[in-house]
Amino acid sequence: MSKKLSIVAFSGDFDKLTAVFTLATGAAATGYEVNLFFTFWGLDAIKQKQGRAFIGGTWLTKMFGFFMGGLRSTPVSRLNFWGISPRIFRSLMRKNNVATLEELVDSAKVLGVNFYACEMAMNILGLKREHFIPEVKDVIGVATFLKIADDGQTLFI
Amino acid sequence: MSKKLSIVAFSGDFDKLTAVFTLATGAAATGYEVNLFFTFWGLDAIKQKQGRAFIGGTWLTKMFGFFMGGLRSTPVSRLNFWGISPRIFRSLMRKNNVATLEELVDSAKVLGVNFYACEMAMNILGLKREHFIPEVKDVIGVATFLKIADDGQTLFI
Amino acid sequence: MSKKLSIVAFSGDFDKLTAVFTLATGAAATGYEVNLFFTFWGLDAIKQKQGRAFIGGTWLTKMFGFFMGGLRSTPVSRLNFWGISPRIFRSLMRKNNVATLEELVDSAKVLGVNFYACEMAMNILGLKREHFIPEVKDVIGVATFLKIADDGQTLFI
Repeated sequence: MSKKLSIVAFSGDFDKLTAVFTLATGAAATGYEVNLFFTFWGLDAIKQKQGRAFIGGTWLTKMFGFFMGGLRSTPVSRLNFWGISPRIFRSLMRKNNVATLEELVDSAKVLGVNFYACEMAMNILGLKREHFIPEVKDVIGVATFLKIADDGQTLFI
Repeated sequence: MSKKLSIVAFSGDFDKLTAVFTLATGAAATGYEVNLFFTFWGLDAIKQKQGRAFIGGTWLTKMFGFFMGGLRSTPVSRLNFWGISPRIFRSLMRKNNVATLEELVDSAKVLGVNFYACEMAMNILGLKREHFIPEVKDVIGVATFLKIADDGQTLFI
Repeated sequence: MSKKLSIVAFSGDFDKLTAVFTLATGAAATGYEVNLFFTFWGLDAIKQKQGRAFIGGTWLTKMFGFFMGGLRSTPVSRLNFWGISPRIFRSLMRKNNVATLEELVDSAKVLGVNFYACEMAMNILGLKREHFIPEVKDVIGVATFLKIADDGQTLFI
């Protein structure tokens, strides 16, 4: 049986998403089947628009969508310093030849990591399939995710 | 062997507790044995008093208990906007026919999810068995939890 | 086969590190092999200097190193009250005969818990092997950690 790593990607923080994609690409590169289940804030990582945008059904979800932002506007979970820290981290990563978050996401796509979006969170936040990148394989619920993650390692980040 | 999902429910955030109970009810509904081990801030989810209350042994733990609050006063982990966000989420959930946090907790009880309270965290925070809802099955420590979670999937939220 | 618990110790929060070491010592005391993989903020737990210090290669990483601090300057993830809360928790732990964070770390060393430092995070933050306590067994990457954690329970904290 091949090895499997599944991650509930709940956080929309720059540093935690970096952890998600570092683990995902590291596992995929060594032959694991990797499944990422994006939910709540984590949906920021798979939005088409990587900056802030008013997406979502009603004005309320649109406002929230704007504040949440996308991959390029993710804050750092601590010492964010009004958005300066993610920029510092990106520059440190480039300087030290560590892949940036955007490069890690691209690697994950190339390595065949499976991207899933959480149906319930999309309903709450007024997000639709077309708001996400085409690499998202499917929109699923918890029961389906548990079946996919079965018999492997599962993390909540 | 039947499938098993165990969660260390450490967070007292509205959104993370929603994740805990969505995973718990989704798993229980599809035949999993589900064990929730509430510790630290997560204990808010199983307090009798769902609002803010001065519970705990000394004035210090009483103050902390007040600030921590209960299920109905849980903040959102990001963009909390001084407590407005949890209300917005609750309204969006109701509007979109997604179960609210309180409904998810009730479902978990009906579906036979096992609730455990962490002994050590209770000692630190001055909480006693009678401060919790009657559905709490037992007050246990880490070693017992590890035995209960053995051979299943375990998450830390 | 003996039981195994592996933890990605990502957080640098006082309360979450307390959870890491409570789980680690609880598992080790009951015969588990325990592996802790410290990354990002979690590296604070294994720094030689437990207070704030300007360590790291460039002035930028030195500044960050100062703000991050060490084990004794870790903040609480919620209701930190400008650093008063960790002190309150330490005093409550002592009063209630619960091991403090520093005592838990010492217990983990005595119980043979394996400490690993994340190579990539060290590169980003400009940290070197000599900045850490001697108990750190090795500096490793994600692929090695996954191999070490294989066939056991794995948590992300």
